Amino acid sequence: MAVGPGTLPEFFPVAGVKLGIASAGIKKPGRKDVVVFELVPGSRVAGIFTRNQFCAAPVTLSRQHLAKKSPRYLLINTGNANAGTGERGMTDAIACCEALAEKAGVSPEEVLPFSTGVIGEPLPVGKIVGALAGALASTSEQDWVEAAKGIMTTDTRPKGASRQVDLDGDMVTISGISKGAGMIRPNMATMLGFIATDARIEPGLLQTLASELGETSFNRITIDGDTSTNDSCMLMASGQYRGPEITADSPALPKLRAALEEVYLELAHAIVRDGEGATKFVTIEVSGAATQQEALDVAYTVAHSPLVKTALFASDPNWGRILAAVGRAGVPELDLNALEIFLGDVCLVRDGGRADDYSEARGQAVMDQEEITIAIDLKRGEIKETVWTCDFSHDYVTINAEYRT
Amino acid sequence: MAVGPGTLPEFFPVAGVKLGIASAGIKKPGRKDVVVFELVPGSRVAGIFTRNQFCAAPVTLSRQHLAKKSPRYLLINTGNANAGTGERGMTDAIACCEALAEKAGVSPEEVLPFSTGVIGEPLPVGKIVGALAGALASTSEQDWVEAAKGIMTTDTRPKGASRQVDLDGDMVTISGISKGAGMIRPNMATMLGFIATDARIEPGLLQTLASELGETSFNRITIDGDTSTNDSCMLMASGQYRGPEITADSPALPKLRAALEEVYLELAHAIVRDGEGATKFVTIEVSGAATQQEALDVAYTVAHSPLVKTALFASDPNWGRILAAVGRAGVPELDLNALEIFLGDVCLVRDGGRADDYSEARGQAVMDQEEITIAIDLKRGEIKETVWTCDFSHDYVTINAEYRT
Repeated sequence: MAVGPGTLPEFFPVAGVKLGIASAGIKKPGRKDVVVFELVPGSRVAGIFTRNQFCAAPVTLSRQHLAKKSPRYLLINTGNANAGTGERGMTDAIACCEALAEKAGVSPEEVLPFSTGVIGEPLPVGKIVGALAGALASTSEQDWVEAAKGIMTTDTRPKGASRQVDLDGDMVTISGISKGAGMIRPNMATMLGFIATDARIEPGLLQTLASELGETSFNRITIDGDTSTNDSCMLMASGQYRGPEITADSPALPKLRAALEEVYLELAHAIVRDGEGATKFVTIEVSGAATQQEALDVAYTVAHSPLVKTALFASDPNWGRILAAVGRAGVPELDLNALEIFLGDVCLVRDGGRADDYSEARGQAVMDQEEITIAIDLKRGEIKETVWTCDFSHDYVTINAEYRT
Repeated sequence: MAVGPGTLPEFFPVAGVKLGIASAGIKKPGRKDVVVFELVPGSRVAGIFTRNQFCAAPVTLSRQHLAKKSPRYLLINTGNANAGTGERGMTDAIACCEALAEKAGVSPEEVLPFSTGVIGEPLPVGKIVGALAGALASTSEQDWVEAAKGIMTTDTRPKGASRQVDLDGDMVTISGISKGAGMIRPNMATMLGFIATDARIEPGLLQTLASELGETSFNRITIDGDTSTNDSCMLMASGQYRGPEITADSPALPKLRAALEEVYLELAHAIVRDGEGATKFVTIEVSGAATQQEALDVAYTVAHSPLVKTALFASDPNWGRILAAVGRAGVPELDLNALEIFLGDVCLVRDGGRADDYSEARGQAVMDQEEITIAIDLKRGEIKETVWTCDFSHDYVTINAEYRT
């Protein structure tokens, strides 16, 4: 199951960013399971990584390499996460980077590795290394669709987003791909996002954009509250765009940032729409909070409540479950008589109980839709936060209970 | 579904504690849905209540009454939770207490009200008041089985526990009943526990026992992480036992405490065994923690992980999901190479990865059992905490998605 049409957009090629795809036969013979990003010299890369303490070896190594050099290559494999593999995991990840570096004539620190797939099994280094020559030989600026397919694991559809925006009279390009269908799949793990632009962006600003845009998109989606060991989201800037370098003071920054944000959100939302067993795309907006933390606490408590999620699956306007989730979110001295809860444009809760003008028919009309917004106004401050999630269906249980059988 | 045989024990009557049951026809005509506990004068009562800020009117009122007087009556109705009912909820709860007080010749503050059932609908005060005369007329010390059935909502089985223990040469009695099948069911809500003993217990100690025993039993079980608006667990001491008053210094206290603890645990575990859709009874032990908070954070993160719970349903020894849940529990500076994870007596994780002597066959043998222990040793301190939960099955989704249809 998945929500919405899920067709890939037309990808605009990003000057200075080439993609190579190859088949290493990691899990299935013939499956294209290795993707290489090749970045023109002078490119800059920033990113964010999983906060799970059991982070996989490639995450640790990517962090180290990123701190040392400007990357020239990103090497992604599916079929094996190289997580829970102890010291051998690091040795294997390094071996892959060294092999690619040697073939490409760069240093190993200029390669960032990413892995997704089975946890706890040794990375098949030989297979991956064997596929590198083919991947490098095939690189082109055109292969975004193949790359989007190449990083899939149990995703039911490839995910991509692309924009061109007029900046100082020239068109700047942003293209990106992502993967993930549960926040975690320890046997077929990981959310990954790769976004590239030909803009030249000052390195500090690039990391700020990668952090801020990742925070309000990929870090605001949740399928089941579980966090992968391998999550990574990288922002690449090739600098091939002819305009001036973008800095924090550039007049063009707001326009570029807005276009980047659209791409980040579209890629992040695509993961929720393809959530395991998802039949609904749900936006949870918490406003009127005194702090960001309490806004997020309320939003995630509602988003993770199995009772709210099963009610969404049933298209059941079960407002008591939303109210109870808000009540247990741990917000100190919450004024229960002040807050308001809306389902779409229908007020569910007001004055500490069901809104006077609420009717089951009005709630049902909203719940019957495929895209639903739950809006909670805490009426105690000015902070607003939004998270996105999906419902909890029989298919979620089927997918996750029968995953290894 | 439910785990284990689930037969009620033989109940020992508790001197000074009478039970009355009647039918008010709140949700179904003829259903026995009102239960009254009648306590002999001089009885003492202590309890713990839900931490959900949207607590129901009867919870607020019970707290107020308990602070003013020693209760003589507990009045419990099923079929309506009187939660999310605003100011009218309080008026209705007070009206029920006043009606019972008048009929019994006590003050309204000597009555504690408890409600469970649909959220957000007005309490049918007339129906409840109409059933009180019958309930009072039928009180006896024998009716524990009927009372256990009378407080059920969607429970598939009544829940009870009973002990007699030799204290200073005389037998002291403890009997209790509980209800609940999800931590919350906003339309048929609530965990309730009522435990009575004929021991005379010093009031401060009684509250300490109610708090401590409730904390390590009812407050350590979780079906789905949702917290009801109506949860309450009351400890009643009639004082009819002939021995001396039990104080914090009594030599008899450890023996009494141990027997009370057995009853608390048995009643709490019975709720997990009857968890919505449960096919497994799961004990999660976290040891070697530096603080109680981090032990509980790890235990609940594992207990609430939908991926761990669906793997348990599938009898799948999917250790990567447990490891990933531990890794996202937020324990600062956790040494991933030191910790150990056991499934029953089989070591899953050691030295940062799958244990060398682990085999799928050994893990499967544990997973195939109906009662499973997951033990996590953080190897950083001396603190140990245990929580109990169940698996996450298709029936959970069915029960909660189709609840109102």
